[in-house]
Amino acid sequence: MALRGPVFRLLRAQLNHTRQQSRAQSVAVLGAPFSRGQKRRGVEHGPKFIRDAGLIERLSGLDCTVHDFGDLSFHRLEKDEPYMDVKFPRTVGAANKMLSGAVSRAVGAGHTLVMLGGDHSLAIGSVSGHAEQCPDLCLIWVDAHADVNTPETSPSGNLHGQPVAFMLKELQDKMPDIPGFSWTKPVLSSRDLVYIGLRDVDPGEHHILKNLGIQYFTMRDIDRLGIQRVMEVTFDHLLARKQRPIHLSFDIDAFDPSLAPATGTPVNGGLTYREGIYITEEIHNTGLLSAMDLVEVNPVLGANREAVEATASLAVDVIASSLGQTREGAHVSIDEIPPVKEDTEQLRL
Amino acid sequence: MALRGPVFRLLRAQLNHTRQQSRAQSVAVLGAPFSRGQKRRGVEHGPKFIRDAGLIERLSGLDCTVHDFGDLSFHRLEKDEPYMDVKFPRTVGAANKMLSGAVSRAVGAGHTLVMLGGDHSLAIGSVSGHAEQCPDLCLIWVDAHADVNTPETSPSGNLHGQPVAFMLKELQDKMPDIPGFSWTKPVLSSRDLVYIGLRDVDPGEHHILKNLGIQYFTMRDIDRLGIQRVMEVTFDHLLARKQRPIHLSFDIDAFDPSLAPATGTPVNGGLTYREGIYITEEIHNTGLLSAMDLVEVNPVLGANREAVEATASLAVDVIASSLGQTREGAHVSIDEIPPVKEDTEQLRL
Amino acid sequence: MALRGPVFRLLRAQLNHTRQQSRAQSVAVLGAPFSRGQKRRGVEHGPKFIRDAGLIERLSGLDCTVHDFGDLSFHRLEKDEPYMDVKFPRTVGAANKMLSGAVSRAVGAGHTLVMLGGDHSLAIGSVSGHAEQCPDLCLIWVDAHADVNTPETSPSGNLHGQPVAFMLKELQDKMPDIPGFSWTKPVLSSRDLVYIGLRDVDPGEHHILKNLGIQYFTMRDIDRLGIQRVMEVTFDHLLARKQRPIHLSFDIDAFDPSLAPATGTPVNGGLTYREGIYITEEIHNTGLLSAMDLVEVNPVLGANREAVEATASLAVDVIASSLGQTREGAHVSIDEIPPVKEDTEQLRL
Repeated sequence: MALRGPVFRLLRAQLNHTRQQSRAQSVAVLGAPFSRGQKRRGVEHGPKFIRDAGLIERLSGLDCTVHDFGDLSFHRLEKDEPYMDVKFPRTVGAANKMLSGAVSRAVGAGHTLVMLGGDHSLAIGSVSGHAEQCPDLCLIWVDAHADVNTPETSPSGNLHGQPVAFMLKELQDKMPDIPGFSWTKPVLSSRDLVYIGLRDVDPGEHHILKNLGIQYFTMRDIDRLGIQRVMEVTFDHLLARKQRPIHLSFDIDAFDPSLAPATGTPVNGGLTYREGIYITEEIHNTGLLSAMDLVEVNPVLGANREAVEATASLAVDVIASSLGQTREGAHVSIDEIPPVKEDTEQLRL
Repeated sequence: MALRGPVFRLLRAQLNHTRQQSRAQSVAVLGAPFSRGQKRRGVEHGPKFIRDAGLIERLSGLDCTVHDFGDLSFHRLEKDEPYMDVKFPRTVGAANKMLSGAVSRAVGAGHTLVMLGGDHSLAIGSVSGHAEQCPDLCLIWVDAHADVNTPETSPSGNLHGQPVAFMLKELQDKMPDIPGFSWTKPVLSSRDLVYIGLRDVDPGEHHILKNLGIQYFTMRDIDRLGIQRVMEVTFDHLLARKQRPIHLSFDIDAFDPSLAPATGTPVNGGLTYREGIYITEEIHNTGLLSAMDLVEVNPVLGANREAVEATASLAVDVIASSLGQTREGAHVSIDEIPPVKEDTEQLRL
Repeated sequence: MALRGPVFRLLRAQLNHTRQQSRAQSVAVLGAPFSRGQKRRGVEHGPKFIRDAGLIERLSGLDCTVHDFGDLSFHRLEKDEPYMDVKFPRTVGAANKMLSGAVSRAVGAGHTLVMLGGDHSLAIGSVSGHAEQCPDLCLIWVDAHADVNTPETSPSGNLHGQPVAFMLKELQDKMPDIPGFSWTKPVLSSRDLVYIGLRDVDPGEHHILKNLGIQYFTMRDIDRLGIQRVMEVTFDHLLARKQRPIHLSFDIDAFDPSLAPATGTPVNGGLTYREGIYITEEIHNTGLLSAMDLVEVNPVLGANREAVEATASLAVDVIASSLGQTREGAHVSIDEIPPVKEDTEQLRL
């Protein structure tokens, strides 16, 4: 009378079959163990900790096939003096050039790309490679910080606070010729970008956000509007004119530090777990996610093992939710669960 | 000059007097130390820990009389082989039969019933006994899980994931004849039930929720609508046609694990403290609460004493709020606080 | 090529210049190390811990000049028997009289006053001194408690639960002649006051709130309306008829105990960090904040150093946000960030 098996296995089998049939989504996971865009060591271990938190298993349970391309091997440059105040310009430039190529190939091969950072300077390469295949992409940047300093407005000189400045056409003439970045070109207009989660914005960044008329939502805006309305306006802003590929660049520090303590530049008053998941569920529901970054998980900075594991596990939840995991649940369309009372035998497999 | 006494004592005396006069609400507390509906031991200690957290004292401070009927004594069955994959069917069936009788007697005697679990399989007996007295009851199920698997869709075979399937008339023909449950009969239609807090729904459950058109609110729905609107729709769904008794079945794992860590199947992204209290305040305000379950507090699973006490204390808050404790405060209707400046003496008691 | 300096320094220099020009806001910080309004020792160390958490530095980074007037020296009275149940009436009265004078002088000298408590009985002196200079002020009381017991309705006799009763004209005839308070007179009508954050209201207080028609928002109201609407109604209630000075009296226990554990009377289900900051941002945005209290940080009551530092740091955030710190960021109005590509040289300073 091993009956439970039947319908449970039937449901699961049908689910898997349906998925194999319809499986439009193939996911490529690519690690980028890199930390030279900022000064705190440890963020280069992000990819390992996110994988150890069960990323690949979780994605395999979703409606997609998963290809783990392992980690990129970045080169340490012997001589890399600062340019102006910009730290490690050639190292960051070379790493992003390598990443850009890898992302371009993965997206070109039809994968939805998941880049595991590493620090947020890696978005230069990730967005650039993505744009090579999808020149009409739009960008959703979920972060406590705007990361849009130019080398001249940056208070720190760290490149992880500047990636968006490299992407924006409108900032072209504000960007000096930084060694290591001759290969880059701006791929976005300011209207192709929406920020969500800002709460620590430098004066130069504020100037840029306002002057370029960039659509952004600070935590205060989320307090005012609610996360549902924020996502509506986001999609209206980016997708109303045309449906196009989305690049999601998710900095784990968008979350409140109580949820994501193991990161380099935590700021109080961040996203709740539910807001973060809501954002990614909504992005998944557009059907337009084409590539995403998950950056700034720094396992060295957690106060203890629990803090590190919570942060890495949160990163897995964000990625899984972006790729179709739901709180609602899901089932394949079957006509009916078969009745058992009349004739149980027919269900035995 | 022991003056403070007067008005404070006056207010308190009037409050108590008023309560004795109007005291429609008599509360029966009934412990159900049972854990065989799932595999983790410890949840049978729930009633003791919830009482130790001050339940009876807290309820005694409210506008009700409290009768603590102690704990039921469940029997351990010597032989109880699984039926299909269903674990401990005869043990769970017998415990629920006993509970059903006790609940029926308590509700029949005019008490508002508070059942302290124990695991959530106990809702089979609790709702059944309640329905014996109040056949037109409706059910509000606050939980991270839908607990509506049939023995055949259940991934685990644990009965605490299946109680709702026993109650629903529409699932009659999907339920095999499980030993120990011949005494049960379905008491609800799918439209008599609303779920709040879902975020971990099995495929078979999702199929049932959708196919039967059950009204449910996942955490995503709460994110979208807000808890106020969720309660409005809940009451509209259950009570618009007629006022009728409410059975509240509250699984402590509806709350976020950061608030209720000592439970067997925690799921991230749960209710906030305020949402949970708002739900129960609203239910109290209907004046229709007739019986409630508070289940799945498992003191063995807390990481430390603080975690266990926080979970048990939260359970007390949920029950007290369901029975009339308010954040707004309350006072009896008196004409006025007497003035003191002119003639203080008159106030001396 | 020390280029980054230029624009960053240029922005900063312009910001400072603009601030010096426009600097209407001069802030006076005044410590009130006092704990006799309640029974738990330690809250007299609040001012030190809030300063050690970086208050003065944080305020100095804002658009204001900061004058730290140090701490008041309160006298210990040898004989101070309870009057009715009121504890330490002469000590509390004398401390508040001293504070009232200091606040009056600071506000009279044109400062925006920040009073660091100490317990909440200090609001008697703070509001009184403020009202001496600004008789048309209105009061926003952010607190888990209403603090409006009269000596006769108070369950505890602690004066930190009674300060608002001293202020309200409508309660004049309910207030006995407490030794130490002959210098006080009520300065507010009940319509000049709004409460935010209530969740532990005594019966006598509830009677007063209802009978006087005071506008208050419990946590339940915040759950229902959202913090944005709460602030709209608050300002509509207080400022619609005329713009007038705001006194903000902020009890740290308005926040959830998970955020502000080091306080004497914590109550579950409090404000989130973001709600607290939203309240203060909105108050700042009125341009009408004239004086504020930050009270009930008790460093002795934190379970550990982290708990104490978190509470003190939260106090700093509340004060800084009240005085202009934003999550949105800010920049001075400059025409444009100068381009670098054509002629970098001109930017060198």
